[in-house]
Amino acid sequence: MRHQMDAAFLADFAVLSAFGATPDGGVDREALTEADREQRRWFAGLMASHGLEVRYDSVGNQYGLLELHPGEPFVLVGSHLDSQPTAGRFDGAYGVLAGLHAIIRVKDSGTTPQHNLAVVNWFNEEGSRFAPSMMGSAVYTGLMPLEKALGTSDRRGITVRQELIAAGFQDDWDGPQTAAYAEIHVEQGRVLEDAGTPIGVVTATWAANKYRVVVRGEQAHSGATLMTDRHDALLGASLVVVAAREIADAHPGVVHTAVGQLDVYPNSPVVVASEVVLLLDIRAAEPEAVAAASRELHERISSIEQRAAVSIELIETHAWGIVPFGDAGAQLTREVSDRLGVPHSDVLTVAGHDSVNMKERVPTVMIFVPSVQGISHNTREMTHDEDLIAGLGVLTEVMRELGEGRLTQAAAIS
Amino acid sequence: MRHQMDAAFLADFAVLSAFGATPDGGVDREALTEADREQRRWFAGLMASHGLEVRYDSVGNQYGLLELHPGEPFVLVGSHLDSQPTAGRFDGAYGVLAGLHAIIRVKDSGTTPQHNLAVVNWFNEEGSRFAPSMMGSAVYTGLMPLEKALGTSDRRGITVRQELIAAGFQDDWDGPQTAAYAEIHVEQGRVLEDAGTPIGVVTATWAANKYRVVVRGEQAHSGATLMTDRHDALLGASLVVVAAREIADAHPGVVHTAVGQLDVYPNSPVVVASEVVLLLDIRAAEPEAVAAASRELHERISSIEQRAAVSIELIETHAWGIVPFGDAGAQLTREVSDRLGVPHSDVLTVAGHDSVNMKERVPTVMIFVPSVQGISHNTREMTHDEDLIAGLGVLTEVMRELGEGRLTQAAAIS
Repeated sequence: MRHQMDAAFLADFAVLSAFGATPDGGVDREALTEADREQRRWFAGLMASHGLEVRYDSVGNQYGLLELHPGEPFVLVGSHLDSQPTAGRFDGAYGVLAGLHAIIRVKDSGTTPQHNLAVVNWFNEEGSRFAPSMMGSAVYTGLMPLEKALGTSDRRGITVRQELIAAGFQDDWDGPQTAAYAEIHVEQGRVLEDAGTPIGVVTATWAANKYRVVVRGEQAHSGATLMTDRHDALLGASLVVVAAREIADAHPGVVHTAVGQLDVYPNSPVVVASEVVLLLDIRAAEPEAVAAASRELHERISSIEQRAAVSIELIETHAWGIVPFGDAGAQLTREVSDRLGVPHSDVLTVAGHDSVNMKERVPTVMIFVPSVQGISHNTREMTHDEDLIAGLGVLTEVMRELGEGRLTQAAAIS
Repeated sequence: MRHQMDAAFLADFAVLSAFGATPDGGVDREALTEADREQRRWFAGLMASHGLEVRYDSVGNQYGLLELHPGEPFVLVGSHLDSQPTAGRFDGAYGVLAGLHAIIRVKDSGTTPQHNLAVVNWFNEEGSRFAPSMMGSAVYTGLMPLEKALGTSDRRGITVRQELIAAGFQDDWDGPQTAAYAEIHVEQGRVLEDAGTPIGVVTATWAANKYRVVVRGEQAHSGATLMTDRHDALLGASLVVVAAREIADAHPGVVHTAVGQLDVYPNSPVVVASEVVLLLDIRAAEPEAVAAASRELHERISSIEQRAAVSIELIETHAWGIVPFGDAGAQLTREVSDRLGVPHSDVLTVAGHDSVNMKERVPTVMIFVPSVQGISHNTREMTHDEDLIAGLGVLTEVMRELGEGRLTQAAAIS
């Protein structure tokens, strides 16, 4: 019986992985691209076939509701089906499908939970097409205004509102009232693999500072202009990218820095760039390390301004310390894992997840399964079947406990 | 009389400068954008109003023909009306309008030249929307296959062929048979201003090597991935940009280097870049200096590959030494300037121009007028009215001499 249920999950996951599949085993399904629209329609059909009511809220979050007690709040489980361009097939997708299968298992086990249950496919967790990331859960939890999300446009000027309406994924509804939330996700790091444990109990997020860096120079002919007359924004930006890396290297194993996005204007082969905008982030497991690295970045900026004869604006867009998920949720995962005989380790999450938004509102459980070599946001991202199955088993029991009111007294948001 | 003709030129130039005008006195009219289409239609009307026959060739070069001797070759004069995004109003546009006015002046002076005369607005000299630059003159001179030019697409996937057909700027014709070519252009450098002379006699182009640099890394999560596990293509590319600048700085006043265009994939804030493509060029007045700088670049690349754990491909796309324009053409400009009492200096051109293609086929005269502070590819590009007028006077007399067969015996291309 258990074997059949596991096989059913893996079969559904294989179908899901075909949407937007790349030749090397990854997927390419940014929010509301054709591949994302197709997988959402397929997932709607799958939820309906298991007796869940399929609904969308005003920002396009997709829900499958098992409403056992009309009007009562739901225990919600899920993640996101959208991906980065050319990314792995596990990131987000595993958590959505595991959430649905966990509900099916609880439902089919013959007991009636005390709470209603629902699975959610959050809209636009990745933020690569429509920035910022974690948009659907941010609107649901009130951390981002709905109108701001709907007005966000991609590089071609197409807005979230246009795409949601065109695809029919939007309803005049705020989503279900929630009592608790659970999410399972691939780790995207190496801690679990190195420790040899299949379950990660996520206790907190890393501290992080994120910056939007605007480097301003002067357009000039890239051949004729004397080098000493140049105000080269791309040179300034390149020095910032290198400085970010050097700051991380100065705190080995402690500080992570990254510049993943960088846009050049006018980006012509014969024009010295007048403006470059890049996004830089600094993360560490300790707030003090983030603060030290941020100070170093500020110190480096002024010498870069001189070196490239440009001006640099450093705009802090996010800053947070270590943010705990809550002891009760972590303790529940540990208990369930012990009961099932599955080894577990406490871990921090470096990446953001929809659960980071949800934990601000309701009791939240966050669970990781291992990523092979920590590879993620890459088509070679991999989690072994046995770890997927172990994680689904733990998630199912977590949902059963949450359904019985564990972690919830009066806590609920609408 | 001369004063009226000068005023007519400046009045036409003011109208021309309004197409795609930016608030700060520059223009934004990349090839076949709406502003470029509009100015081409206006210029066609202006040429026709002066009795020239307006025609287009198969790659969208726009001609105004004064065919005095049916079937005989033409002396061609011109430049380009297209611009970089947010660029100056003189670059190219001055040469096209001055060419037309020079023909009008020769025609209205009562003598009948021995050669037919024509003005040309070359298609897509800038190459910012459709790469590479100098496309129209390259196809005309047989240096680029027509089909390659027509199949070139912009960032949105729109091809030259589609845009030319939509705008009606294409005919099944190879362009006029040419006996000689003249072009006047703003210097885009400081030599003339520093020397205090209004006319530059362009004797040769700088030597240059141009590279397409492809930096290959691995996509990874920009937060969760350990720094030591990263293969960051943007870090590698940034080190290349910095190295290019350091190589120029090591040869002060001799070598110019530039990276103006750089594209990141996938260019997402939370993904370590897997590929960056950038265009790098090295220029100098001496081929030996270009060769030395190119060797230094190659040497730097391998250490950058190690530092960023990436692989870097350096593809040489162009390599040329000092290329002379021909003594006879330079001597003609000097003679005419002396006769008019206009001071002149010999100069090299660092930038490419359509005349660089034309000189490979027919006797070619290339003339510069000063650029204030050498500023170019910038909306603040400036050339004073008196220099525009002095240049037009010299160009007119050069065209009169070329029209009388100076420089041409049997030399002609079709």
